[in-house]
Amino acid sequence: MTPKRALLTKLIFCFVLAYGGLATAQAADSLPSWNDGKAKQSIIEFVTQVTKEGSSDFVLPAERIATFDNDGTLWAEQPMYAQLIFALDRVKALAPQHPEWKDNEPFASLLKGDVKAALAGGEHAILEIVMATHAGMTTAEFEKIVQEWIASARHPTTKRPYTEMVYQPMLELLAYLRANGFKTFIVSGGGIEFMRPWTEKVYGIPPEQVIGSSIKTKFEMHDGKLVLVRLPELNFFDDKEDKPVAINQHIGRRPIAAFGNSDGDLQMLQWTTAGQGPRFALYVHHTDAEREWAYDRKSSIGRLDKGLDEAEKKGWTVVDMQQDWKVIYPSR
Amino acid sequence: MTPKRALLTKLIFCFVLAYGGLATAQAADSLPSWNDGKAKQSIIEFVTQVTKEGSSDFVLPAERIATFDNDGTLWAEQPMYAQLIFALDRVKALAPQHPEWKDNEPFASLLKGDVKAALAGGEHAILEIVMATHAGMTTAEFEKIVQEWIASARHPTTKRPYTEMVYQPMLELLAYLRANGFKTFIVSGGGIEFMRPWTEKVYGIPPEQVIGSSIKTKFEMHDGKLVLVRLPELNFFDDKEDKPVAINQHIGRRPIAAFGNSDGDLQMLQWTTAGQGPRFALYVHHTDAEREWAYDRKSSIGRLDKGLDEAEKKGWTVVDMQQDWKVIYPSR
Repeated sequence: MTPKRALLTKLIFCFVLAYGGLATAQAADSLPSWNDGKAKQSIIEFVTQVTKEGSSDFVLPAERIATFDNDGTLWAEQPMYAQLIFALDRVKALAPQHPEWKDNEPFASLLKGDVKAALAGGEHAILEIVMATHAGMTTAEFEKIVQEWIASARHPTTKRPYTEMVYQPMLELLAYLRANGFKTFIVSGGGIEFMRPWTEKVYGIPPEQVIGSSIKTKFEMHDGKLVLVRLPELNFFDDKEDKPVAINQHIGRRPIAAFGNSDGDLQMLQWTTAGQGPRFALYVHHTDAEREWAYDRKSSIGRLDKGLDEAEKKGWTVVDMQQDWKVIYPSR
Repeated sequence: MTPKRALLTKLIFCFVLAYGGLATAQAADSLPSWNDGKAKQSIIEFVTQVTKEGSSDFVLPAERIATFDNDGTLWAEQPMYAQLIFALDRVKALAPQHPEWKDNEPFASLLKGDVKAALAGGEHAILEIVMATHAGMTTAEFEKIVQEWIASARHPTTKRPYTEMVYQPMLELLAYLRANGFKTFIVSGGGIEFMRPWTEKVYGIPPEQVIGSSIKTKFEMHDGKLVLVRLPELNFFDDKEDKPVAINQHIGRRPIAAFGNSDGDLQMLQWTTAGQGPRFALYVHHTDAEREWAYDRKSSIGRLDKGLDEAEKKGWTVVDMQQDWKVIYPSR
């Protein structure tokens, strides 16, 4: 491209941006998959409030931090977390190199296809599975493993790729916030390196804005090549009261808006709304047994119990999936 | 502002940006405090190389990550790290609440003004001083303490505020990189929460792009108010081989350019330059005893020994402060 053409392209792009910015701040149809109702209205009101220049509620773009949980908030988490299915797939793939697994739990049960028996060992069993499948390789090798899995794996009931098990209304919400100057972050209990290989493409969230659980890594020289090796040792578990800790460590400012779906997100929503000035908290409530899943207070995955009470008490937005969302997943 | 005026303002801003972008990619005078020479030339050549659309060396803006050490790279670190002086000032301020300090080292020596004797206890003494002065309060309280200190403290020899002990040529370099689509990060051995209260204003680097050493924090309810309490326990020491670890943890992509001044930055520069495609590494060499300080291979603060050898071997850019910089600090 010649400098003159590059300049022209930039200017056209700027026109689009400038007009686009005006349009999204006002128009409700930045959220076409949201039915008109309290939830959609509360989102638009908040965004309008904090972006109105001259108003006492105006928030500088640099302070417009929005944090999103991932499992159950941006994509489906039933009938099992995607990362757990990834780990089970990895156990099968690695089994030939681990003949000892056929005699040792939790691997023996897993290899017989009995997930329930394998997970009977509780947290310890899960940790063993995670470390056996997520550690012992370099960060670059792990990234490639995740990329290949996410490109080929299919959801057990819908048979869709996992990247198409994301919620279309939430994709629109992410884009709407960014069009209004927000910086969007993921703050998930899931593995940080399990999400980063695909979040930019799927959600428009770059790796540096992904926060999650992690294991330790070590800088080493392997065959004359510098690598980061993934160690079988927990570094950080990003859940509950450690979500505000992670937000402070990684972002260094308090979000003004936070989005979750379970009790694991409660402290993030509390921390966000406890700040001064306009604040926004939203829970996605899984109420749609037909198009997705219906679960809340008694679910072992994504339990929403204390959070639901607190949302009511505090007047937070609760999305009723069945009522508020026109579609669940992106059209294929 | 009316919507129409807001639009006009945006468009004018866009024109400035578009023309500015073209200009900076080409013009040498984005770096007016740099003398013409190899160092300045190497910076401009690299930036021109990675921003030239259509070229095989073109790097997408999202991948233009640049990481900077802080002490000795962006601001002065002699005769003592600013954060250590901060800690000593805090010991004096807190002494009335700690009568026991006058009988216990390292505090007793410090309070008598004998820094050398206090630090004779080595790493353990430093850790005691850091924990006594950096922990035991909320993150919000600590932020306020840092803000007040940085606004009032003066450098022991120049009597300038510490925020004016930053290097003018590096401020220009940060701005030049950002004007060319780079995202600039700090990756420092200094405390992350000691830097964040002022880096945005001074360097244009927002808190979420500051990486540093940290202590653990805990989410708690204090008198009905949610807080993060700073605990006297090390979380992460961001130096040497842990700089690539921190970069991976926080950014999740490998930088294409890295800037440091000491052996503590060597692994960051190695990790950066070991990636594929165009890479850039720069060492600031403190050679100016008259306008700043001259030190390298034998200095206890900011030792540059192995790094200097490797820079020569690998052809990295080495800034000779005396030769390459027209001015050191911003004019007052």
